[in-house]
Parts: sequence; C-alpha cells; structure tokens
Amino acid sequence: MRWEDTVRRVVPYTPGEQPQKRDVIKLNTNENPYPPAPGVTETLSAFGSEQLRLYPDPEAKVLVDALAQTYGVKPSQVFVGVGSDDVLSMAFLTFFHSDRPILFPDVTYSFYDVWAELYRIPYKKIPLTAEFRICAADYQQENGGIIFPNPNAPTGILEPLSLIEEILRANPASVVIVDEAYIDFGGESCLPLLGTYDNLLVVQTFSKSRSLAGLRIGFAIGSEALIRYLNDVKFSVNSYTMTNSACLCGAAALRDTAYFKAATEKIIATREAAKQRLREMGFTLTDSQSNFLFASHPAMPAGEIFAALKARDIYVRHWDQPRIGNFLRITIGTPEQMEALYAALADILKK
Amino acid sequence: MRWEDTVRRVVPYTPGEQPQKRDVIKLNTNENPYPPAPGVTETLSAFGSEQLRLYPDPEAKVLVDALAQTYGVKPSQVFVGVGSDDVLSMAFLTFFHSDRPILFPDVTYSFYDVWAELYRIPYKKIPLTAEFRICAADYQQENGGIIFPNPNAPTGILEPLSLIEEILRANPASVVIVDEAYIDFGGESCLPLLGTYDNLLVVQTFSKSRSLAGLRIGFAIGSEALIRYLNDVKFSVNSYTMTNSACLCGAAALRDTAYFKAATEKIIATREAAKQRLREMGFTLTDSQSNFLFASHPAMPAGEIFAALKARDIYVRHWDQPRIGNFLRITIGTPEQMEALYAALADILKK
Repeated sequence: MRWEDTVRRVVPYTPGEQPQKRDVIKLNTNENPYPPAPGVTETLSAFGSEQLRLYPDPEAKVLVDALAQTYGVKPSQVFVGVGSDDVLSMAFLTFFHSDRPILFPDVTYSFYDVWAELYRIPYKKIPLTAEFRICAADYQQENGGIIFPNPNAPTGILEPLSLIEEILRANPASVVIVDEAYIDFGGESCLPLLGTYDNLLVVQTFSKSRSLAGLRIGFAIGSEALIRYLNDVKFSVNSYTMTNSACLCGAAALRDTAYFKAATEKIIATREAAKQRLREMGFTLTDSQSNFLFASHPAMPAGEIFAALKARDIYVRHWDQPRIGNFLRITIGTPEQMEALYAALADILKK
Repeated sequence: MRWEDTVRRVVPYTPGEQPQKRDVIKLNTNENPYPPAPGVTETLSAFGSEQLRLYPDPEAKVLVDALAQTYGVKPSQVFVGVGSDDVLSMAFLTFFHSDRPILFPDVTYSFYDVWAELYRIPYKKIPLTAEFRICAADYQQENGGIIFPNPNAPTGILEPLSLIEEILRANPASVVIVDEAYIDFGGESCLPLLGTYDNLLVVQTFSKSRSLAGLRIGFAIGSEALIRYLNDVKFSVNSYTMTNSACLCGAAALRDTAYFKAATEKIIATREAAKQRLREMGFTLTDSQSNFLFASHPAMPAGEIFAALKARDIYVRHWDQPRIGNFLRITIGTPEQMEALYAALADILKK
C-alpha cells in the first residue's frame, strides 16, 4: 500500500483566468467595472498594524450586524464567509448530508458538481427547458437538497419568486439554497420568503454588485436554525475566516447605498444597451438580468470568437460543455470597454 | 421527515476569547506581543482600490514564491491558506480518507478531533507519556494518517527530529503531518526530512512568529505530489482564498529576516525568564519551546487562578479536560505584561 491510496481525489473547478498583464479588457469573471464605494478605501487606509497582530473577531460582528441592518433580519440569521464560494461550500457540507441526491440544473454554476464530488454528495442534474428555464415540477421528486442560482449562471435568466415558492412548498424536508450572486442587477430577491420557509438559505456576495471581489466576502441569510447549523460547521473548519479589515470594509460598502444604487444602475443601463448592440450584430442573447451577457452567433462558433477576442486582449468566458458550447459569457464592463468589444466583434465577424 | 434530518451535526471548536474591551492583558491566544515587520504596514497602506475590485490571483503566486525562496523549496512544494487552520482542515479532508483511524496524541491541539468528527474520519488518540512526551513506538500500528504538533500544544514540548523520522520510517503508507505552528521559537523544523519522505507535510503559520494573526496566513510544505493533491481539494472548495493584500503583506514579512529574528529572540528570552519567575512562585512548568508556558500550581486549582486572573483583566487559557485540567496556558507577552502577570499571580496565590 502507498500513502496515495488514502488520498481524496477530485477534479477541481477551473476559475476564469486572471491575466497578469496590463491593458487587458477583462470581461471574463463578472467583476464590477467600477471601484468600490469611497468609504471602503478610506477604511482600508486607516487600518492599523495592531489589528494585524491580533486574531480577528471570530464572530465577524461588525459585518454581520451591518448585513442584518441592511437586509432587515436578525444578526443570528446572517452567516459570512470568504466569498460566496466559501459560504456555498460550507452549506453543501452542512446541509446536503443524506443518501438522496441533491438537485440542481444541468446548466448552472459549474462549482455545484465540484462541491458535490468533493464531499461525496449524490446529485442529479435537472435539465433546464430548451429556453434555459427552470421548471418547478422537475423539483418534485425525492432529494437531499436543492440549489440553483437566480438569476441563473451562466445564462443570466431570472426566475420569478412564484417559481421559487413553488419549489419550496414542494420540499419542506429539504434545504433549498438560492444563490443570488447576481440579484442586485435588477432581480427580485427571495429574502421576503424567509418569513415563511425556515429551510430556505439565500446566498449573496460582495464580489459583483459591491465591487469587492478582491476582499473575499460572501454571506448567507436564513432562519436562525439554518444559520446555527452552518456556524457549527464553520467553527469546525476554521475559527477565524474573516479579517477585521474585510469586515470593516464590507460594512463601509453597505453604508453607501447611494453609490451602490448608482453603480448597479449604470451596469444595468450598459447591459441593456449591449443587448441591443449585439442583437444588431446578429447575436442571439438570453434576457440576462445579471452583470453579464450570454450570447451566441449563428455565423461563428463561440470557441472561435473567444480565441479571436483573446488574441485582441479581450477576455470573455467560454465553456466547452453540452448545451452551452456555442455561447460566450461576457461580463458587462464600462461603456468604453464595451465599445472596444463591439469593434473587435465586428472585425472578427466580418472575416 | 424534516430538513434537519439531512444536516451534518457537529460540536465546533471553541476559540480563545477575543475580548473587545481595551486595556486587557491578552495572553490567551498565542499572539505575538510585537507588531509585524514595518514593511508589512507599508505594503498595506500602499494597497490600491483597483485591487479590491478584481479577484485576487488564485495561485497566490507572490506569497508562494516568497515562501519557496525563504525555505529553499520549489514553489510547487508550497500550499497557502487562510491561517494554518484552513491548511490543516484541507489536509484532513485531502489526506485522511480511509477507513483506518488516524492517530494523534491525547493531549494536543484540540481542533484535531473536531476536524476528524466534521469529516467523519475515524481517529484514535494516543496517550502521551506521563511527562507529556510522544512515544514513537505507539505510532507503529495500522492507521489512516498521523498528525501531531511540534512543539506540541498546549504543552510546548519539543520532540527531536530523530523521533519524527522514526515515525516516518514506520509509516510509508500514511501521510504524516507535522504541525509546526510554534517551531520558530527555538525548535528545529523537520523541513530537512522532506528530501527523504514524500509523505511528510509540514504546516506553519504567520499568526505567531510573524505577528500576523489578523491577516490569516498559514502554509504547508511537502512533496510536489502532496501539494498537488492538496491544491486539487483547495480548488474544489474555493478558487480565491487569499487576498492580494494578504499575499503582499506576507511576502513583506518574509523579507525582513532581521526583524523576525530579533522579535522571536526577544520572546524566547522573555519565556526563559518567565519560566524562572514562575518556578520561584512554586509553579510546575514544562520546558516549553514555544511562545507560551504550560503551568500548574500545587496550591491552587488552575481553574481558580484562571478566573482570578480574568477578574484582573488578564486573559490566559484553561481547558477543563482530562490530564490538563490543572494547567494554564500562558502566552508570552512583553516583559511589562509579564511583570503585571507575576504581580497578579503573587497576589492571587497569597490568598
């Protein structure tokens, strides 16, 4: 026997490229094109070295309280982590702990099956409709939990609260996780359903709408019972996940509601204009309600467009996977970045 | 059936208290009493908001390369995480994946059984000798992995490399993790054994000797094969665990070897003086080679001393557990903090 025999083998998730060279137009990992609220940078520059020496607050109280106030819930209903991936990973580990398969869409955030494989959770992919929509009736079968993003990724399609409630009503014995990473770009959050369903966990992030991908902050809101179980697991993994600077900066971002509103509205306006422009160029697009587009062109395979854009230092995302292999996911950048994209696409497509 | 039936239930680790009030003498969580190297604070204050907006480098290359250079290994032999707890938790998940029990001392870092319980890893606690020493022969039995700290916690006792090598020689089919959180305070690291044993993983942290508990940086060094497996699991949990500011600050801390040497030597000198002073007061002490003392007094139960110190705003650590219930773990503070401790102890013991 060799020590390799006891190793857990997994195939990891591949994140979008973080090119180190400058002057790249980076529309590949759904970052916000605008800087975080000014208060965040001020908070960071005032951060003292004494805070570095000491362990941070294991409860991350400053941030938890700020989130509770922002979303009108109790602090005991809020969980925070190192980006929403950390939160989701903990949630998989905590809540999806049975022999029954968990359910999620076939076209969705590609980390879901990675977590399921990692934690040896049985799972079943439920095909979206031909129009990439979730069908609530498909989630009325035996399961050990349910998860889906809303808006979905990488399609950007938003489902109505009525669909989420239909799934919740049919699944009182399962934890249902709604991954709202992109909800701030025009979607309606299902947070109001928390009053009725104590098995609903809503996960959001500071990486997109709050312009803080580099700070690593995600959070979950749910019933006190759910959050207690989640914290028990979190405190069984790592006592101190959140730095005090992340907590203070996160709270500062939440305080500036005017900045937040202005930045998300700019992105929404750019997105709607981009849909129009790309349609004029012959692209087929979903009606994305997120900070990205999901686009296909009848005249050229997505993989070719992807490579041609990359050769021009414009990075978008492409997955060589069933059903979505001919689509590009394009993050909404500034209007100037989008103009550069349109010009490049026009050039690529005329060949 | 209820949704609670599918929840993973665990009893979490309880971290040492992080009192929010000022003017406390905090000797309870083994933080460094001195600030981090000046270059760290300079790096932090130069950190720009553009870096907040973008995802960090998923490879944490700046930090990995700096560690490789510092410890004379290849970058592909280095793994970094959100404190050594994150690194150890990942290592448990990755390497302890069999039906055979993992082995660790009965008196040790109390997170080990928490991780084992969390990931449902069978485990067996191996009693230390009456003098709290590890006996290599006890680790010559069937196992699914081995872990122990060196120096051990909370005893502070350092074992020689010959003992570690004896355990490694007897266990070629197991991953052996040596948790060197406290090695920089006078111990001899087992890193030189890496050339001979590809199943050895050495874990260290920036939280103690580098004065960066608040920044959350831990790391592991091992064979390229071990690190590859560990990274596969890490990238199956969370692509972006390390912020760019943590990586840059960590690298800055590594660069200032003179500061590091001076700070650790001061702590070692204070520790040796403290042993002398506490012995004069009647305490029994282990020969700790860490940044804390492990002390017992024949005239008063440790729990009482703990409470009396806390009433005087001096925080130390006490576990109401078998074998160590009559000991206190006291972090080495500044000479001034230690004087305040001696005065308080003298006052408490004369009652």
